Amino acid sequence: MRCISCEGRYNGDDAGTCKQCHEDHKAKLAFLTTTHPSSFSDIFLFASDDKEAARPVPAHKAVLVSRSPVLRAMLENEMEESRSGTIKIGEVSYGALYTFVNYLYTAEVCLDKQLACDLLVMAEIYQVQHLKNYCQKYLVSNLNLDNSLLTYTFAHQHNAKPVIHAALTLIIDNMDKLTAREEYAELKEKDPQLVFEIYEAYLSKQVNKAVAEKGFAVADELAVTLFFKDK
Amino acid sequence: MRCISCEGRYNGDDAGTCKQCHEDHKAKLAFLTTTHPSSFSDIFLFASDDKEAARPVPAHKAVLVSRSPVLRAMLENEMEESRSGTIKIGEVSYGALYTFVNYLYTAEVCLDKQLACDLLVMAEIYQVQHLKNYCQKYLVSNLNLDNSLLTYTFAHQHNAKPVIHAALTLIIDNMDKLTAREEYAELKEKDPQLVFEIYEAYLSKQVNKAVAEKGFAVADELAVTLFFKDK
Repeated sequence: MRCISCEGRYNGDDAGTCKQCHEDHKAKLAFLTTTHPSSFSDIFLFASDDKEAARPVPAHKAVLVSRSPVLRAMLENEMEESRSGTIKIGEVSYGALYTFVNYLYTAEVCLDKQLACDLLVMAEIYQVQHLKNYCQKYLVSNLNLDNSLLTYTFAHQHNAKPVIHAALTLIIDNMDKLTAREEYAELKEKDPQLVFEIYEAYLSKQVNKAVAEKGFAVADELAVTLFFKDK
Repeated sequence: MRCISCEGRYNGDDAGTCKQCHEDHKAKLAFLTTTHPSSFSDIFLFASDDKEAARPVPAHKAVLVSRSPVLRAMLENEMEESRSGTIKIGEVSYGALYTFVNYLYTAEVCLDKQLACDLLVMAEIYQVQHLKNYCQKYLVSNLNLDNSLLTYTFAHQHNAKPVIHAALTLIIDNMDKLTAREEYAELKEKDPQLVFEIYEAYLSKQVNKAVAEKGFAVADELAVTLFFKDK
């Protein structure tokens, strides 16, 4: 059976929906997706890193509060942002901010590595879990030996648990190669706690491996004993 | 294989998505569904049939324009509704109007017969095709001999093609029973054109049936001829 969404093959246990239900869901999604319009906007977001004369990203309070509990608190509690009708977003480019706001309307974005990191940071700050999950998936599927240490550090800074887990697994499987690298030396300098965590995970893996091997050895021994007992 | 949405059984040809994709779609739908809040509303809708002191249904122009091309034209063209921030909806109860607006935010509604008709009328006027489809499906699945003539008349008034088609099929399959009914006599009086349409569909069915039967007869004759030719 082939999934018409991801095009992967699946069997009975992994069955989701029939074609009709999938069509219904798609139509519902299309209906609920609001294009990100500039008309009737009642709030403007500004990127603090916008190099050009500050360009506003128009939005609607009603949409922002329904997508982010942090923006809800800002806007519903008559804070400065609500009164002035503007929100300043720190340490982000205009492009990334625009994409972030657009995602709040459409749940659609075409990621690259940099954008995934920028959006993950904003999703973490404004508690947009759906977007955070999406960025995490992207980072996990784009993990490799070259970016593993940097991604691990980044994921730690922004509490991206699935990325931490995936990066750690990759790192401890390749300790010999990675400890020779410059990023490793830098990490020891900058954040020794993270290096300890890596070593502890590595150690724990070694111990588990040893226990498993010993388990096999004991099992083998037992099998031999039983074999001779039978004779 | 069982669909986890409608719970029906389906086979390979009717496969939609795998479980993971279905979960992803559900999360996306939940993310994009805006609760219908009263905060930050910039427009109020009023039901002309509201018996109590006119109760406003709060909404957001940005949501209304993205769901209905008619409301878009009203609100974007600086018409009276946009200037005053109020829209009066004719011949509808407060409850039905509230449900209509709520559907524009959530794509969710629990229908009964009356509500399905009220919402279909509004969906037709404001060109909310997704809601119109939903009401049409409800009316088709709740068709029976008792409501067929009235549903047929209603569907004609509001250009609900799938309902017209389903009701007509049911009616011409039960002409003998229906022509004895009071609704039929009333329909002849009120809208003779519809009765002609029913008779023409009935006639066409009879002709097709006769042709098919004649076809079988000719085929039978041919088979007999060939049988004796073989002997």
